[in-house]
Amino acid sequence: MRAARLFEYHKPLRIVDADYPQIKRPDHVIVRIRGAGACHTDLHVVEGVWRVSLPLTLGHENTGVVEEVGEGVEGFKRNDPVVVHPVMTCGVCRACRAGEDMYCENLEFVGMGRDGGFAEFMLTSVRSLIRADGLDLVEVAPLADAGLTAIRAVKKAAPGLYPGSFTAVIGVGGLGHIAIQLLKQMTTTNIIAVDIVESKLRLAEQLGSEYVVNARDDPVKEVMAITGGRGVNVALDFVGTQTTHETCLRILRKGGKFIVVGYGGVINLRSADMIANELTIEGSLVGNYIELQDLVELTRLGKLKVITNRYGLDQVNEVLDKLKTGELIGRAVLTP
Amino acid sequence: MRAARLFEYHKPLRIVDADYPQIKRPDHVIVRIRGAGACHTDLHVVEGVWRVSLPLTLGHENTGVVEEVGEGVEGFKRNDPVVVHPVMTCGVCRACRAGEDMYCENLEFVGMGRDGGFAEFMLTSVRSLIRADGLDLVEVAPLADAGLTAIRAVKKAAPGLYPGSFTAVIGVGGLGHIAIQLLKQMTTTNIIAVDIVESKLRLAEQLGSEYVVNARDDPVKEVMAITGGRGVNVALDFVGTQTTHETCLRILRKGGKFIVVGYGGVINLRSADMIANELTIEGSLVGNYIELQDLVELTRLGKLKVITNRYGLDQVNEVLDKLKTGELIGRAVLTP
Amino acid sequence: MRAARLFEYHKPLRIVDADYPQIKRPDHVIVRIRGAGACHTDLHVVEGVWRVSLPLTLGHENTGVVEEVGEGVEGFKRNDPVVVHPVMTCGVCRACRAGEDMYCENLEFVGMGRDGGFAEFMLTSVRSLIRADGLDLVEVAPLADAGLTAIRAVKKAAPGLYPGSFTAVIGVGGLGHIAIQLLKQMTTTNIIAVDIVESKLRLAEQLGSEYVVNARDDPVKEVMAITGGRGVNVALDFVGTQTTHETCLRILRKGGKFIVVGYGGVINLRSADMIANELTIEGSLVGNYIELQDLVELTRLGKLKVITNRYGLDQVNEVLDKLKTGELIGRAVLTP
Amino acid sequence: MRAARLFEYHKPLRIVDADYPQIKRPDHVIVRIRGAGACHTDLHVVEGVWRVSLPLTLGHENTGVVEEVGEGVEGFKRNDPVVVHPVMTCGVCRACRAGEDMYCENLEFVGMGRDGGFAEFMLTSVRSLIRADGLDLVEVAPLADAGLTAIRAVKKAAPGLYPGSFTAVIGVGGLGHIAIQLLKQMTTTNIIAVDIVESKLRLAEQLGSEYVVNARDDPVKEVMAITGGRGVNVALDFVGTQTTHETCLRILRKGGKFIVVGYGGVINLRSADMIANELTIEGSLVGNYIELQDLVELTRLGKLKVITNRYGLDQVNEVLDKLKTGELIGRAVLTP
Repeated sequence: MRAARLFEYHKPLRIVDADYPQIKRPDHVIVRIRGAGACHTDLHVVEGVWRVSLPLTLGHENTGVVEEVGEGVEGFKRNDPVVVHPVMTCGVCRACRAGEDMYCENLEFVGMGRDGGFAEFMLTSVRSLIRADGLDLVEVAPLADAGLTAIRAVKKAAPGLYPGSFTAVIGVGGLGHIAIQLLKQMTTTNIIAVDIVESKLRLAEQLGSEYVVNARDDPVKEVMAITGGRGVNVALDFVGTQTTHETCLRILRKGGKFIVVGYGGVINLRSADMIANELTIEGSLVGNYIELQDLVELTRLGKLKVITNRYGLDQVNEVLDKLKTGELIGRAVLTP
Repeated sequence: MRAARLFEYHKPLRIVDADYPQIKRPDHVIVRIRGAGACHTDLHVVEGVWRVSLPLTLGHENTGVVEEVGEGVEGFKRNDPVVVHPVMTCGVCRACRAGEDMYCENLEFVGMGRDGGFAEFMLTSVRSLIRADGLDLVEVAPLADAGLTAIRAVKKAAPGLYPGSFTAVIGVGGLGHIAIQLLKQMTTTNIIAVDIVESKLRLAEQLGSEYVVNARDDPVKEVMAITGGRGVNVALDFVGTQTTHETCLRILRKGGKFIVVGYGGVINLRSADMIANELTIEGSLVGNYIELQDLVELTRLGKLKVITNRYGLDQVNEVLDKLKTGELIGRAVLTP
Repeated sequence: MRAARLFEYHKPLRIVDADYPQIKRPDHVIVRIRGAGACHTDLHVVEGVWRVSLPLTLGHENTGVVEEVGEGVEGFKRNDPVVVHPVMTCGVCRACRAGEDMYCENLEFVGMGRDGGFAEFMLTSVRSLIRADGLDLVEVAPLADAGLTAIRAVKKAAPGLYPGSFTAVIGVGGLGHIAIQLLKQMTTTNIIAVDIVESKLRLAEQLGSEYVVNARDDPVKEVMAITGGRGVNVALDFVGTQTTHETCLRILRKGGKFIVVGYGGVINLRSADMIANELTIEGSLVGNYIELQDLVELTRLGKLKVITNRYGLDQVNEVLDKLKTGELIGRAVLTP
Repeated sequence: MRAARLFEYHKPLRIVDADYPQIKRPDHVIVRIRGAGACHTDLHVVEGVWRVSLPLTLGHENTGVVEEVGEGVEGFKRNDPVVVHPVMTCGVCRACRAGEDMYCENLEFVGMGRDGGFAEFMLTSVRSLIRADGLDLVEVAPLADAGLTAIRAVKKAAPGLYPGSFTAVIGVGGLGHIAIQLLKQMTTTNIIAVDIVESKLRLAEQLGSEYVVNARDDPVKEVMAITGGRGVNVALDFVGTQTTHETCLRILRKGGKFIVVGYGGVINLRSADMIANELTIEGSLVGNYIELQDLVELTRLGKLKVITNRYGLDQVNEVLDKLKTGELIGRAVLTP
């Protein structure tokens, strides 16, 4: 089967003929990939930020139809359309029993720890499948990581928000444009969308952002002006550079929360400043199976729409380049 | 009246004859100070970490008896024994209406923003008073800041703790020895007390710490060994140096929480590490009026005991020196 | 001044010439009433459900402009437009310090425990005032009780709701039509509006209810059909008759929550049934000052619209009759 | 194998020779029973409160050692000592994914829906097993239901409790004497233990209850006196008769919570009273797998001790009689 694989850090992926995966456990499932979203984390893997075992097929944001199932699989059969949660979990550790899939003690991450979905077929486990009947499998692919990561971050943001509060959404890309929709659905906060691309700010407005700020100007100053000098209640950083981290720390009000989603720089803050304003800095890591179910249901109900751009598998390096330069609107999805 | 005042940063306080305070608003109250605890924040004021208006009478951890009340004061009269919450609040801003006293938009901090309790008398407001009938006013003085700061930090720690979880208490001083007692009262976690003074580790054991670690050895290694290589669920830093901040960040398990109480160093962490382990770093700032009521009640019920050492007002610089060198067991209280 | 007062239970109110109120404490305020909503609780007072001291001026849902202030009042002056929280609170008891206004130990309820807003002027306290600059004082009057009661109930409902969950809103009257809007703003649940008046069900649809059920048919059967036989996650009873209470208890799914807002019947349930399905029955009582601030802000932002019908003070008995028969759409507001 | 089975409602169980259970699925496990606690729910099954399929082997509170495992079982082998969670769950429905075992859509309840542990062997699933190495399997048997039900109820009680609050524990039997210990471990509330047996009240005192009330007197009057006329914050009813339900409803303060654990009577309350005091009535149903893990860990740490009385399997009817008359101190455990 065809697969886009990383053989060496900092080099383009190569489209090769890879082995068809093998079912080794009764709960294993092979999915014929229909949509595989491209993510900044793919870039970070190429850059060697995460040390993986090479060669590796990338792609952790997948949909498809069931091709083959292990003998213990119930509830799914060949050709069932599915969204695939990006991690395979054991189901028996304390974290799994509590529904905290990302903390599974025996977790395997497709496209990171094992071969992912930039390929015709991918192995996963029945515990990672969510039915997607009636949905366009390319359009919902970004739910499996961009959407999932956005909803977890928004859920961390939501408890302290109220009418008249302010939430900064830094970066209106794949994650940010979903986060804005979720904030509108789940909270009454005023949204300030921050980006450096005007068309993305226009998109933010269409999705309901009350305010937009072009970060090429002085975003700290503008956000402080919008908030009457108090700063925001929550800053969601979906970009993850040294610059965006610093911006977030400077726009928080007393008791404010900085939720780190995009990564790349260093968090750096005097503890005296942290105390004086009683700030919280909170990492957010992908999301749980149930949260992915919620996203699929929101899409089915028409309350959430992901903007997608379709590409063939052989365009994978072109897609990763576009992602790097930030010129994509919404999310790019490969259709192997 | 006599008062211990700071005239110049980095210099000892001077005992001077200061003006008796004046009631200027109907809710004002003058308290005759009976106990005034000495705190690391007093040291930080002397060091110029916080820029205050000099000269200033320090002391934000106070008890006493009511001396004089404004005309609008109800419920308190001359000679009533009281614990004094360290901030004066307006009662009408959103934060006050929500019980978040530390976020009051019109907050005044005694011993920081205005004259504190290292003096015979201190001005405050009726909103800051809690009745202390039947209690030893020297023994309960540390509740007003050390205890208050400890309980807020413990409340931030408590929700994720369960039997078999681990909580590191870094520093068994004025705050730490209260935090251990509160963790025992309010949670089922296993406590690992960390300090560099053996007598403080013995105290931690007496108060119920399941484990103690001398930080002169390799505390990261020892904590990781105690927790089976997983790290702690929560690290409470009551010391606040660059070293303790770094230790805390290195002993957290996946999903772990670092609660910053003591301050002095810089929090420094790659956002990729923050994400990969989904860490939370949370500042904790003193505490609310209700939390101070809870501490007073816990003391009344015999469920909390603060270790205090009594000193005269003229020993204030000696006390601050002892605090700096870390040789005090429990809390030092001035009795002006 | 003119006032609509109850002199005898089960009798119409009488429009009489009443004494202008007197400021007796420094925090007292006299408000010139601009809008006074009529509520089922007014009916219940007339019916003698609540034993009050007669004669009494009814009306607990008020807006107006400040007429006169006590000497201790800051932040408000003559002619400031205000929404009035229905209870006067002390600000110093534990409940007040925690923001739980309805539990104030020294609470006074206008229109219940003391004279209310069915009059030209009403006495209240500065703690009950919320600025309403730029708002139509008749249109926002229902926020002060109908809206406030609805938001508290919705906040109790919200934590367990997710996309695909179901919430029954029983009664699309003054409270219900606000609750539907708030559920849309704050949750992703599917709403099932239940009423016996077709025009109210049409209104529910316009406000975003996914389903409507006419209770003249078999509402239990219909709700169970809509929810695939599982029942709803939350039932909000804004009507409060024996029939609606019973309906709510019969449509709950396992773990479901029945939130009692309207009152009038008896809650009756075998504890074995309560356990077997782990049900919760939760009373909801008006709401806090901060929640009223949130409603005023939501209205200012254009996210909430109350449907109002204006009546003169002398139409008060006519209005109470219409309320009883359920023929009003939205809320009736007197304009004394 | 020998088993104590119910053949007819309202009749004693009969000790019969029953079929050894059969493993039918790869996750099935057969446990050799070492301890099987007797519970009021067993009485209720005998009384026909729950309609089950007869004949049925009772017993849902079990420990033992693994006898045989299905081919898909990992992590457990023959002779491993285990505590058995009382329900078998599917692991894939939304409730299971969220850790809410009691809401599993495919739940099977041992001793209720299928044969339980009043027998030499019992079938269950690997998802229900918790390792009990080093523990006395008779002493920990009551954790599997009495303890589990107590901890869930205490967790529902805990959030609103603070120093100076009051919690009534109605019934100091199998559940109540565990609940008191958990309240002491997890909260700072004042406990008022209520029972009709003096020796149980003495036990409550030994376990740390601040107050005890003999319900043969006027418990409502006494509880109101203890609480200064305000009533309790939480009433936990572990008995479940019409009388205890009514007592609980009459001793709640404003905002109070009645947690229904024992069942048998009818909850009956005017909704106007429910609103006026904003009461909550909350059913509590057994508990989750993780909560049982917590109990096992608490026991291992020496923080929880269950009082047990050992009986042979052939004493089962004698034990059920003692349970009915309320003369047992702690929990009776059969050792088949």
